[in-house]
Amino acid sequence: MFKQVIIVRKDLGMTCGKIAGQVAHAAVMAMEKTSEYNPNWVTDWKDENGQIKVVLKVNSYNELNDYFINTINAKLPVVKVHDAGKTQIEPNTVTCIGIGPVPSERIDPIVKGLKLL
Amino acid sequence: MFKQVIIVRKDLGMTCGKIAGQVAHAAVMAMEKTSEYNPNWVTDWKDENGQIKVVLKVNSYNELNDYFINTINAKLPVVKVHDAGKTQIEPNTVTCIGIGPVPSERIDPIVKGLKLL
Repeated sequence: MFKQVIIVRKDLGMTCGKIAGQVAHAAVMAMEKTSEYNPNWVTDWKDENGQIKVVLKVNSYNELNDYFINTINAKLPVVKVHDAGKTQIEPNTVTCIGIGPVPSERIDPIVKGLKLL
Repeated sequence: MFKQVIIVRKDLGMTCGKIAGQVAHAAVMAMEKTSEYNPNWVTDWKDENGQIKVVLKVNSYNELNDYFINTINAKLPVVKVHDAGKTQIEPNTVTCIGIGPVPSERIDPIVKGLKLL
């Protein structure tokens, strides 16, 4: 089973609409990254019912970056989303990361401590 | 200039995390649909700074469906997102629609009455 995991910073005070846009950026960018890394993972995920996406939260950039590094160390495809900063937050702020789609058994141990957004 | 437009139902009482996941589904699905319809629009949008996404809101299924039909009548690529209904809402509920990326001047007149989520 495959899933895409998106981890969002809750400390930036973004509105729900802003968060939704950032998560959508992460989903598209992570899928592209995974297509370069292992296109079969994207194909298999698309073939599965529902194209599972899980949206999780952290409370700081440092915490987000720890998950980013842990995911890279696990040799899984991950992207950082930088906001253009035209609205609500400072330019170039990292708002979230997007992972995969990747095999669930490889990402679940990395993010198991995190709560759903 | 190109943009992707996602319109979300606010009447379903979805949490922000749930909305973010649905919007991400819409973004991925609409991009795929647009790739079949006019791959140049996707390429041009990706080449533009920021890959603009706009997340808007409506208050009912009927309202959402009106925008869906208006977009189809304008010959623009649009997808409906049906939720699997494992959490929070009834199975197969339409939660949002995703449009494009499409040229801004073609979608702006259709959605100009809507507010940002």
